[in-house]
Amino acid sequence: MTLTPDLIAQTYAAISLATIRTPTIRATRLSHILGIDLYLKLENLQHTNAFKARGALAKLLTLDAAARKAGVIACSAGNHAQGLAYHATRLDIPATIVMPEGTPFNKIQRTADLGAEVVIHGKNFDDSVQFTFDMAAEKGLTFIHPFDDPVVAAGQGTVALEMLEQVPDLDCIVVPVGGGGLIAGMAVAAKGKRPDIQIIGAQAHLFDAAKARIEGFSPHFAGATLAEGIAVRQPAPANIAIMQTHVDRIDSASESEIEDAVFDLLSHEKLVAEGAAGAGLAVIKNSLAQFAGRKVGLVICGGNIDSRLLSTLILRGLMRDGRITRLVFEIDDMPGQLANISRIIGEAGANVIEVIHQRMMQSVSLKKAELEIVIEARDQRHVDTITALLRDAGLAVRDL
Amino acid sequence: MTLTPDLIAQTYAAISLATIRTPTIRATRLSHILGIDLYLKLENLQHTNAFKARGALAKLLTLDAAARKAGVIACSAGNHAQGLAYHATRLDIPATIVMPEGTPFNKIQRTADLGAEVVIHGKNFDDSVQFTFDMAAEKGLTFIHPFDDPVVAAGQGTVALEMLEQVPDLDCIVVPVGGGGLIAGMAVAAKGKRPDIQIIGAQAHLFDAAKARIEGFSPHFAGATLAEGIAVRQPAPANIAIMQTHVDRIDSASESEIEDAVFDLLSHEKLVAEGAAGAGLAVIKNSLAQFAGRKVGLVICGGNIDSRLLSTLILRGLMRDGRITRLVFEIDDMPGQLANISRIIGEAGANVIEVIHQRMMQSVSLKKAELEIVIEARDQRHVDTITALLRDAGLAVRDL
Repeated sequence: MTLTPDLIAQTYAAISLATIRTPTIRATRLSHILGIDLYLKLENLQHTNAFKARGALAKLLTLDAAARKAGVIACSAGNHAQGLAYHATRLDIPATIVMPEGTPFNKIQRTADLGAEVVIHGKNFDDSVQFTFDMAAEKGLTFIHPFDDPVVAAGQGTVALEMLEQVPDLDCIVVPVGGGGLIAGMAVAAKGKRPDIQIIGAQAHLFDAAKARIEGFSPHFAGATLAEGIAVRQPAPANIAIMQTHVDRIDSASESEIEDAVFDLLSHEKLVAEGAAGAGLAVIKNSLAQFAGRKVGLVICGGNIDSRLLSTLILRGLMRDGRITRLVFEIDDMPGQLANISRIIGEAGANVIEVIHQRMMQSVSLKKAELEIVIEARDQRHVDTITALLRDAGLAVRDL
Repeated sequence: MTLTPDLIAQTYAAISLATIRTPTIRATRLSHILGIDLYLKLENLQHTNAFKARGALAKLLTLDAAARKAGVIACSAGNHAQGLAYHATRLDIPATIVMPEGTPFNKIQRTADLGAEVVIHGKNFDDSVQFTFDMAAEKGLTFIHPFDDPVVAAGQGTVALEMLEQVPDLDCIVVPVGGGGLIAGMAVAAKGKRPDIQIIGAQAHLFDAAKARIEGFSPHFAGATLAEGIAVRQPAPANIAIMQTHVDRIDSASESEIEDAVFDLLSHEKLVAEGAAGAGLAVIKNSLAQFAGRKVGLVICGGNIDSRLLSTLILRGLMRDGRITRLVFEIDDMPGQLANISRIIGEAGANVIEVIHQRMMQSVSLKKAELEIVIEARDQRHVDTITALLRDAGLAVRDL
């Protein structure tokens, strides 16, 4: 089987009845802020909140009755696991999902809730994969790869067909890249319809294997990235080959750029997007001049971001914008200091959100105390005004 | 001018070129969890992230050249302000927006960024409204009411026309109710097309003026509600009259139900929705039996929720689910206690997120210390297991 426009067209016909035709919306506020014409394909609204459900369904539909009866197996703690579990359960196909030890509870729970049998095995991902192969052979289960399979990639490629039906005159599409299934499928599909369209991949600096393979440098594999959905060490060679012929370039973004982009999507477009989608917006923001005056499509590939992480990300976003600031005071341990500080902050038009007043376990001298005050201000300029006022009143304050 | 299906049809034709035809999506996960067939109209993706932009545009388009040149004025700190500012600026009509003193910075900023002149005046909303009328008269500006105007209500009513084009066989639509413009417009539009369709209003318990007027009880006006977009004291009499003939009933929800619903929309549907939309989902959740087996539409009327509030709401949601828990220990002030506690928690499979160890300013005796540990667990049952293990080890622990 080869990944061709025909295969993708057939796959599209096969999966569309059970796939959500997610909307492509114009990102009005981000377009205005960034000065480009940006369209978002909302695969975070797909079944199990990620495009992966398309490829998984495409593959399941190619299995014969015996293989369906025996069941399928995959190794994934993320979107592939959930997409496969969802469609396998719906089609009455037993699904086993292997996850490494230490997988967060909520990922196990969600996959189990979707009807899959979750098996926790392996100290790391490589161990889990080996165990998955062994179990597939032993029990006669069909192993379903998350990206190294032309049928799976064809399923993901249907995202591009929908985008071009929804916004036919896109000049370019930015696609997050991990193992390469999504971008390979989308590039073949899109260039099959519109050879002039530009396809740009997006990776995290910390996990840039596909970019490294294509450009011939040593990839980074550096621990945890916010874009965990595309933190793949070994993209499929077949997908790399397609990228070499069908993808115009692959850009990468830093963790802080990705974090910022996820916050942008949340605050300006009211969308919960996962880090991989943030990487896509981040590479656009890094090359705005190249996108000016063009219709740019971006795949919001998924919305599965941990809620606690999201809550922290919002607060950090507000801190970056200067709306929330931590001021640390070294004060004489005398009555009235807190009242004095609160008054100055209040009169300057900011709100005190939190006060931490500790005399133990701190680095200042015994006769001094450290006071930490979290304030809500208009922006960084407002914070600067407030710290100046506090210093004028003789207070030793640092803006963290 | 009277609010009729014809007026709404004409308004629809007039505003549609400059209005986002927002998607109506099936809420797959919420439908599954709640056991109903739920469709969401995503007006949080509308211009300025709320349906209010429709009514504001509808009204602006009816102004003659002289009125456009003189400009418009409104009194609002919320979605009406932003929707009006957006379309007025786009149409080159000067817009003045009056907001009461104490309006949060980010609301002022966003409206000013959209090109309106923001005037801060009045100790409370009534003062600001009076000032707005005076300024309109003095400067010859056209006052644009947020809901007490048939043209504005007709603009909001176009939401129903789009929903019925997108999902023609909806059995009922749930609509958040404040001043009544949205529900009046939608009820006239929807029942004009489909007399059998059910229209249900949703309010906050704390601000239930419309429900009170229709059912003849004394309304609650009780301070701050999360659903601030529908915290209206005086719904328009004309809208109330339409509700009496066209709306099947109005239900209300408590603050904790609304908060829970906003968290549901975020975590299950990946949508940032404001409290008013949460009130809509909350009344559905309160009457699930009545919605079983029917196609239920819900207007996600806006996505403008304060980011800091949203961050806190997520953490509280995780706390409610037992995923984040605060354990407070009263311990002997001896070395090794923290290590012991951390070990027990770790072995039980939970993560320690935060440790607060204070010996000052607390209620326990001098020889004891209070230790607060925030843990991430699977769910409440897991927390119960952990606290039991800690108590077995002789520790005095409270689960807050």
